[in-house]
Amino acid sequence: MAAEDFPMKLSRRDFSRLGAMAAFAGVLPKVESQNADSEPAARKLRWCIVGLGRISMDHFMPAVELSKTGKLTALVSGHREKAEKQAAQYNVPSPSIYSYDNYDEIRQNKEIDAVYIALPNSMHAEYTIRAAKAGKHVLCEKPMATSVADCKAMIEACRKAHVKLMIAYRCQYNPLHLKAIELIRSGALGQVQAIESAFGFNIKAGEWRLNKKLAGGGPLMDVGIYSLNASRYLTGEEPGDIKANSSIIDHDGRFDEVEENDSWTMEFPSGIVASCNTTYGANGANYFKVHGSKGTMQMDPAFNYDGMHLTAQLDGQTIDEPEAEQDPRDFTRQADYFADCVWSNREPKTDGEEGLRDTMLMSQIYQSAGLRGL
Amino acid sequence: MAAEDFPMKLSRRDFSRLGAMAAFAGVLPKVESQNADSEPAARKLRWCIVGLGRISMDHFMPAVELSKTGKLTALVSGHREKAEKQAAQYNVPSPSIYSYDNYDEIRQNKEIDAVYIALPNSMHAEYTIRAAKAGKHVLCEKPMATSVADCKAMIEACRKAHVKLMIAYRCQYNPLHLKAIELIRSGALGQVQAIESAFGFNIKAGEWRLNKKLAGGGPLMDVGIYSLNASRYLTGEEPGDIKANSSIIDHDGRFDEVEENDSWTMEFPSGIVASCNTTYGANGANYFKVHGSKGTMQMDPAFNYDGMHLTAQLDGQTIDEPEAEQDPRDFTRQADYFADCVWSNREPKTDGEEGLRDTMLMSQIYQSAGLRGL
Repeated sequence: MAAEDFPMKLSRRDFSRLGAMAAFAGVLPKVESQNADSEPAARKLRWCIVGLGRISMDHFMPAVELSKTGKLTALVSGHREKAEKQAAQYNVPSPSIYSYDNYDEIRQNKEIDAVYIALPNSMHAEYTIRAAKAGKHVLCEKPMATSVADCKAMIEACRKAHVKLMIAYRCQYNPLHLKAIELIRSGALGQVQAIESAFGFNIKAGEWRLNKKLAGGGPLMDVGIYSLNASRYLTGEEPGDIKANSSIIDHDGRFDEVEENDSWTMEFPSGIVASCNTTYGANGANYFKVHGSKGTMQMDPAFNYDGMHLTAQLDGQTIDEPEAEQDPRDFTRQADYFADCVWSNREPKTDGEEGLRDTMLMSQIYQSAGLRGL
Repeated sequence: MAAEDFPMKLSRRDFSRLGAMAAFAGVLPKVESQNADSEPAARKLRWCIVGLGRISMDHFMPAVELSKTGKLTALVSGHREKAEKQAAQYNVPSPSIYSYDNYDEIRQNKEIDAVYIALPNSMHAEYTIRAAKAGKHVLCEKPMATSVADCKAMIEACRKAHVKLMIAYRCQYNPLHLKAIELIRSGALGQVQAIESAFGFNIKAGEWRLNKKLAGGGPLMDVGIYSLNASRYLTGEEPGDIKANSSIIDHDGRFDEVEENDSWTMEFPSGIVASCNTTYGANGANYFKVHGSKGTMQMDPAFNYDGMHLTAQLDGQTIDEPEAEQDPRDFTRQADYFADCVWSNREPKTDGEEGLRDTMLMSQIYQSAGLRGL
């Protein structure tokens, strides 16, 4: 796929996205084959998992097992028994099980190259910064942090320590999302005018996500961020004007600390508008729609671990493409991409700056809605 | 369908909607049978069509022909030849063809009971008020008018003249839209949290809709109003907080006077949020989605003359209901409903106040987006 295939003016950001797109479309050499050329086949990025929740145990750890570039070598958990069970499953030696108290000792563990931070949101900053100080590269789950200041401190700590910092915006590496971006950049949709996106679920009482100190905010921080981030990578632009409403409907104890619903409108510099909703009070919203002068495209569901479905009605062309891969392939791809960034000393496409931008925008959304910003 | 079937607290507005719903669900006596009981079967509401555009000639006039309650008896047009052709087709006598100049003479025509106003938006007020002064009932197309002041003047003129004023919010009488409202009111969706809706099309150059003096505004006035009105009748609430962005992307001569895109977020008193888009730059958006604690419902397409499609995923129930009827059945139903309002001296559900409310809200949307209000 040559740059000339894209008749529109491309920004630096577009080029970096197209590069990633091409890499995963199999046109550029794959991570594995690059690796085979330049490194012994056995080279592995050695991962320390920080936080043993669902996303680690059900998705990221199995994904690393399936990856050719990664290997699990250490765990950090507050639950020793749970950690030992996982360690046994993945052949992690007992001395490489850490608690949050002795976490800084990972510095001395030469069998750790990188950490995967999968803790409650408000802990991302501290554990990223401590990892950087320990000389380890960091892949941190989204949302990057619960304040703009924390994001900036994370970027600075990783810069100082010369370690990579990547935010786990899984969708930006997913082939179907990359195809959606490509369809827009290729001009197949004509001039994009409007985007709608929503993502939400009906949250159960008792989740840490409802604790403001841990989560930083409600559905916007957790799932609304998918619609926000998608609006940015689909347009390739940064929104200028954001206006929002937030609400709490159910006074059933779940929403004593965080909001239940967020609704916002964004205008991008080109004039593209986006309307988004997110909720902790209802299942069923999980999509984006893009309306252009030559066609309409939608992904529904759009933000799952697998099973995504892209459809488009274009001038003389209909696209109906279900996701070809299964969970945890998205996580494996993400781990492989991160390994490649580390080994080739490349800045990840979804770096700290990318996480910071979303955090600043979420702060604006909360402020516009009359809530305290981040 | 008894009121007890609706466990939620119902407002006066709900009751009037349920009444209409029941009427058209065939539970209450139908207009035709009421008519048969109380009036000679031959009684007809005699319509004067004001403005011979697509909506009159392709939809409303054929719809009246199909109706048991209506009869076309007069036409108003600036194109005598076109009017004569239509008059011949519908057996309208030549003296009952009026121009905009001698329009006020409809007062003397005892063969006219009501007018159907299908003129460019900015002319709705003048021709409604002149009709009222001529003692004729008025069914006026949406948007009601291009300013709040005009809406108020229309209401006042019809009140003073003791004639009915109805705004042609076709969807509020459509069985599938009534079913969507019923599903929400019955509790089948649980607590509604969030609504998304969008409606737009790629407008051709030269349309009167692009002339601000005639149209009053861009896609919001023309098609965005469907999403705005739907959000109100689906929730049964009036939005409190509206925030919006408007933009022009295509500087190709079409958007020298009106905006190309509008995007807005609304919060309703219960806390329900709604995100809406409308565009004159893209085809393909024509839907609403409603997310509740017990299920999700969508209509797509939602705002066509026919072919609507309602689907819902509820607790233990899936609904997949395509529109059963064809155009111009919606227009016939609307004409029948209006005749019933006239004959039974009932205030139409979509009266002048309903049109005024949307106009006030559209004015707020424009003001929030930094445009001049209505």
